[in-house]
Amino acid sequence: MLIVQKFGGSSVADAKRIRNVAGIIAETFLEGNDVVVVLSAQGDTTDDLLAKAAEINPAPSKRELDMLLTTGEQQSIALMAMCLEGMGLPVVSLTAWQIGLRTDADYGAARIRRIATERLKRELDKKRIVLVAGFQGITRFDDYTTLGRGGSDTTAVALAAVLHADRCQIFTDVEGVYTADPRKVPGARKLEEVTYDEMLELASMGAQVLMNRSVQMAKRYGVELEVLSSLVRAPGTKVKEVPSSMEEMKITGIAKDEHTARLTVVRVADKPGSAFKVMNAVSKAGVTVDMIIQATGRDGENDISFVVPEDQAEQARDMLMERKKAIGFDHVSIDKDIAKVSVIGAGMMSSAGISSLVFEALNDEHINIQMISTSEIKISCVIDAASADRAVAAIHRKFFEQ
Amino acid sequence: MLIVQKFGGSSVADAKRIRNVAGIIAETFLEGNDVVVVLSAQGDTTDDLLAKAAEINPAPSKRELDMLLTTGEQQSIALMAMCLEGMGLPVVSLTAWQIGLRTDADYGAARIRRIATERLKRELDKKRIVLVAGFQGITRFDDYTTLGRGGSDTTAVALAAVLHADRCQIFTDVEGVYTADPRKVPGARKLEEVTYDEMLELASMGAQVLMNRSVQMAKRYGVELEVLSSLVRAPGTKVKEVPSSMEEMKITGIAKDEHTARLTVVRVADKPGSAFKVMNAVSKAGVTVDMIIQATGRDGENDISFVVPEDQAEQARDMLMERKKAIGFDHVSIDKDIAKVSVIGAGMMSSAGISSLVFEALNDEHINIQMISTSEIKISCVIDAASADRAVAAIHRKFFEQ
Repeated sequence: MLIVQKFGGSSVADAKRIRNVAGIIAETFLEGNDVVVVLSAQGDTTDDLLAKAAEINPAPSKRELDMLLTTGEQQSIALMAMCLEGMGLPVVSLTAWQIGLRTDADYGAARIRRIATERLKRELDKKRIVLVAGFQGITRFDDYTTLGRGGSDTTAVALAAVLHADRCQIFTDVEGVYTADPRKVPGARKLEEVTYDEMLELASMGAQVLMNRSVQMAKRYGVELEVLSSLVRAPGTKVKEVPSSMEEMKITGIAKDEHTARLTVVRVADKPGSAFKVMNAVSKAGVTVDMIIQATGRDGENDISFVVPEDQAEQARDMLMERKKAIGFDHVSIDKDIAKVSVIGAGMMSSAGISSLVFEALNDEHINIQMISTSEIKISCVIDAASADRAVAAIHRKFFEQ
Repeated sequence: MLIVQKFGGSSVADAKRIRNVAGIIAETFLEGNDVVVVLSAQGDTTDDLLAKAAEINPAPSKRELDMLLTTGEQQSIALMAMCLEGMGLPVVSLTAWQIGLRTDADYGAARIRRIATERLKRELDKKRIVLVAGFQGITRFDDYTTLGRGGSDTTAVALAAVLHADRCQIFTDVEGVYTADPRKVPGARKLEEVTYDEMLELASMGAQVLMNRSVQMAKRYGVELEVLSSLVRAPGTKVKEVPSSMEEMKITGIAKDEHTARLTVVRVADKPGSAFKVMNAVSKAGVTVDMIIQATGRDGENDISFVVPEDQAEQARDMLMERKKAIGFDHVSIDKDIAKVSVIGAGMMSSAGISSLVFEALNDEHINIQMISTSEIKISCVIDAASADRAVAAIHRKFFEQ
């Protein structure tokens, strides 16, 4: 089997942790597998480098920042190679340019264009463990780029895709994907399998296990992911197209997102195109809109409410105020004291009873639902922030603990 | 003018020093010159990385060590680029692979094979300051190498050679090349110019301003060097083929080397080939021999003495002892309590009086000369270590202070 493994920065933070990870890699290799390993920069390396840069120039170019930051991952792969060498194992470390990992020139948030597999395959043919620096790439003009947040996951998934790996294991500091946040919901349990779409919904709801971008890439190329812990040796959660246990479980997990705000545009003129003008202004501001509710008032005027990421609320309001005259409304109010609680599950739409169970759970707790949206695999409710944890626990009990 | 500038690790050790160096670079650029700058890793970076490696594997492969170490210079060029950007100057930083600096595969001590000048010239044509990571190269199989001690100087000289630069300035923590060590000899004065050969002799005598390797390369390609301080703005010392002041000054400088030992092979059988066998054994041990003296005794037996680097003395003795029977001698003695004092000057052999002045200076001080060797541009005397500083001062007075 060809297995791609990815270890994050905290997993390789010091010599002791590097040895621990080397043990996992060695075990996989000695079981007879071909192993490609993607590593992030050690612990706080990236932050330390950013601080050094800030001391010299508070606003450096992204090109030079990427030139600086890519050294972190290069150090990680060299140190890990030395550790595996010390265990007598054949190993080689490779940076992005050595494996021809080309990206666009969007420094700091580059997208992978292609990966030349020649060098990788040559090293695997030599029966070497191949260590690849994550997070980095090179442009077609041979300049260094970084892939942005979750970049090393993306590197791992992309490598698994081009090498047609049998498995892509993302090692992290949690043991897998849970039905709810295990730190908050004592009854939360680890899922054996989830679909890509469920994982996408969980990720976007703040379950910080995998970035959406790498899940999307895994889905597109059919890469089977496994999320597992680098500290506890136990099976993790598999992310794949059709989980074998789909029929048994109607919902996969419950997540909450507190970094969200509700904007209300009050008394929008009830003319054709008003709602369009509002949403157009928000989209022009580059703001991602989630749910929209239009409440028709008695006097021919509407309130339009929608949910946006918390840090984009002011941006959206400013753009709306700029166009106040053209659109025609009274004022804009922002409520950041809300949370979005979502129930996620691939088999959900087919079971009509799910949403009523959600409402029942919230009703039992006297939690008021402000907004609701549903999709193929998700029901989301906006509630007041103070009730969020209670809501998650109540829904979890309803679905998983009865 | 196209000027190549090189700054060592201590010159870029922190944000303050980076700003200082950026000032020098900016000044050179704003005078209308094309500027290529070679940087070393910051201060203790390389030592810190070596310590990290040692914690994980006390004997890592040189390939992975080079993979680790090359990150230091990459960080330096990125940080310097940010500093120059902050001053509003056009700048780009480039690593060895970006400028196609190819070396052999002798990791840790690689030799430069060739440098592709396309990217460098393209960036210079765009009127950008070009920052190049020193000390590093890549093999023809795209692996990272480092150039060994004094590697960044070598990078600078090589770039000056392929770009046909008008000048190659090596910035360091001394103000130039002196007639003697200015910390020891108060009357020592800075030389305006020296020849490559004089510089080679001075360098090999422990005047740690420039490594021999970069001087040799500068000589081969006719690159005019200038050694100067990054802290004191003053003209330094030019190193070039024929100094204009050659006629005026007979000797260039006085240097001492205390890291030296004298081996004496006592009572070597007076047979044809004995001396050859002795020297052959030493050379087989990989030891560099400097002066040799053969003293013929009364009874048909010889003592053979020679000078070797201090840290190779035991090695040479061990190899001799292994072949004791084949060579035929009584025993080997080692004397590390010696120093080599040398007088260097290109115009020396033409002035017969120089050696007699040296002897006179030492005689005045009652310093006994144990061994003497002369070359085209150097007279070296082996004396006891305790008299070394006094000897240098006495010779310096004789030539420079009368």
